[in-house]
Amino acid sequence: MSDNAPSLEKLSSNKVFGGDLIKYKFKSSALGGLDAQFNLFIPFSGSGDQETFPVLVYLAGLTCTEDNGAQKGGFFSVAASQGIAILFPDTSPRGAGVPGEDADWDFGTGAGFYLDATKPEYAKHYNMAKHITKELPQVIQAAGLPLDFGRQSIFGHSMGGHGALTLYLSSETRQYRSASAFAPISNPSKCPWGEKAFKGYLQGGIEEAVPKYDATELIAKTTEPVHILIDYGTGDNFYKQGQLLPENFLKAARDAGHDEFQVRVRSQPDYDHSYYFISTFASDHIHFHANFLKA
Amino acid sequence: MSDNAPSLEKLSSNKVFGGDLIKYKFKSSALGGLDAQFNLFIPFSGSGDQETFPVLVYLAGLTCTEDNGAQKGGFFSVAASQGIAILFPDTSPRGAGVPGEDADWDFGTGAGFYLDATKPEYAKHYNMAKHITKELPQVIQAAGLPLDFGRQSIFGHSMGGHGALTLYLSSETRQYRSASAFAPISNPSKCPWGEKAFKGYLQGGIEEAVPKYDATELIAKTTEPVHILIDYGTGDNFYKQGQLLPENFLKAARDAGHDEFQVRVRSQPDYDHSYYFISTFASDHIHFHANFLKA
Repeated sequence: MSDNAPSLEKLSSNKVFGGDLIKYKFKSSALGGLDAQFNLFIPFSGSGDQETFPVLVYLAGLTCTEDNGAQKGGFFSVAASQGIAILFPDTSPRGAGVPGEDADWDFGTGAGFYLDATKPEYAKHYNMAKHITKELPQVIQAAGLPLDFGRQSIFGHSMGGHGALTLYLSSETRQYRSASAFAPISNPSKCPWGEKAFKGYLQGGIEEAVPKYDATELIAKTTEPVHILIDYGTGDNFYKQGQLLPENFLKAARDAGHDEFQVRVRSQPDYDHSYYFISTFASDHIHFHANFLKA
Repeated sequence: MSDNAPSLEKLSSNKVFGGDLIKYKFKSSALGGLDAQFNLFIPFSGSGDQETFPVLVYLAGLTCTEDNGAQKGGFFSVAASQGIAILFPDTSPRGAGVPGEDADWDFGTGAGFYLDATKPEYAKHYNMAKHITKELPQVIQAAGLPLDFGRQSIFGHSMGGHGALTLYLSSETRQYRSASAFAPISNPSKCPWGEKAFKGYLQGGIEEAVPKYDATELIAKTTEPVHILIDYGTGDNFYKQGQLLPENFLKAARDAGHDEFQVRVRSQPDYDHSYYFISTFASDHIHFHANFLKA
């Protein structure tokens, strides 16, 4: 933790399920000095000042902010009862000023893809991987908030499911105990969303992305035991269009020797890509992570 | 049920907690021939084609539509497990074209106040009371949807809490078995929001409103047993500003002989006016109504 960690400005606070959902802002060096916002759910502590909570990181999908999961995910009932904090980062830097960053809904603002950009025009600001894995834990710990980043897991939706799986599988520090995803972009180097993002953010394009930012490629090379849960809906139009490709991830996992106790991919009949789908299985996912966060 | 009931157009459908959330549109005669939309949650039926579900009506607050409660209320988990359908009407007519109806956020569009207007410029379109108590049940039954409007209860938030309490207490047909509210406008003839609405929609202004559209006045005159649950948060700025006045309702109820088994008003420390507050107590409210809907 740095001596000159940026200070957190509290923007709002809402009581929910006995705990507090607090929105913070700070100057993010990972995002090139731009203001970054996040939401943090801290469960009620009945046991005094010394208690710290394990942390579940929620990564949202394309076009979202730090608010969507908090408002629509239906996560807080179980998180409160399990004593788990939830960290909701934003999905991209805001206001970087790169020409064209606001032209499309699936690239640039609201679409950071949880990677560290290497193309010169994006490399200063578009570093969501570093922001989430390194910067946010440092800043939050420096602020003295009661979170235990030694017990972290990660989950997400769509682009955020891609983020959760890749940050879990590629992390040098193995900082997450488990990963789960709702309708994740599971093999982004083979789908239009991923191809566009990788070509746009990375100097080496898809080739540069494959070993670091493609969950299917990563699980194929992972030999240690893993804890992964994935749900997707058969009524999801993005699934039907081939943007998600969860079967590719599942096959690569099985081929690499990860059995159903390590990697569970569930097909949910008729569910779509919306937060109605997420909220339905939210309880399952948080209980899944509780197995490892509370171990 | 009318022979020439308008046909329902299905706009979208989302699977959620094993059931279906369906958005419909129809030409509303109660709203002067304008298109009206509503959402309807129908739980999963495991027992064949003949099953019908009791109906819980959710009335949203100022500026909301039929979507807010569905997206953020956290109602579906318990409703699904209890086998209760939820009907989400809109909060006003849309596009009536009355001069000034879009000028303020607390009057006109998004602020129908669940009454039937008598001022000439509003009387054609602003009839949300009739829309909810008469028209929607007729139209939905005529469409053959599996709802049993003989078992109905009603709840709501803020302006919608006002609507739930007043439609429950004033209904000529006593069509609702129970009413509950989150942070309701409980004594609208004595608060700025209510005064503005009543003066704007009703020829007789507040005087016309008092016997029909003020929950505190209505409970004071109600002698039959009632089933009412109210929650409000002490951190709610609108409560602090005197827009809600739940104490007035509680006092009138007790003075009229309604004890804590009939009227329960709960003060929730530090909760605010948001859907985070609603979602926290959603389960309590739906279980409360289940007592009566499943009796």
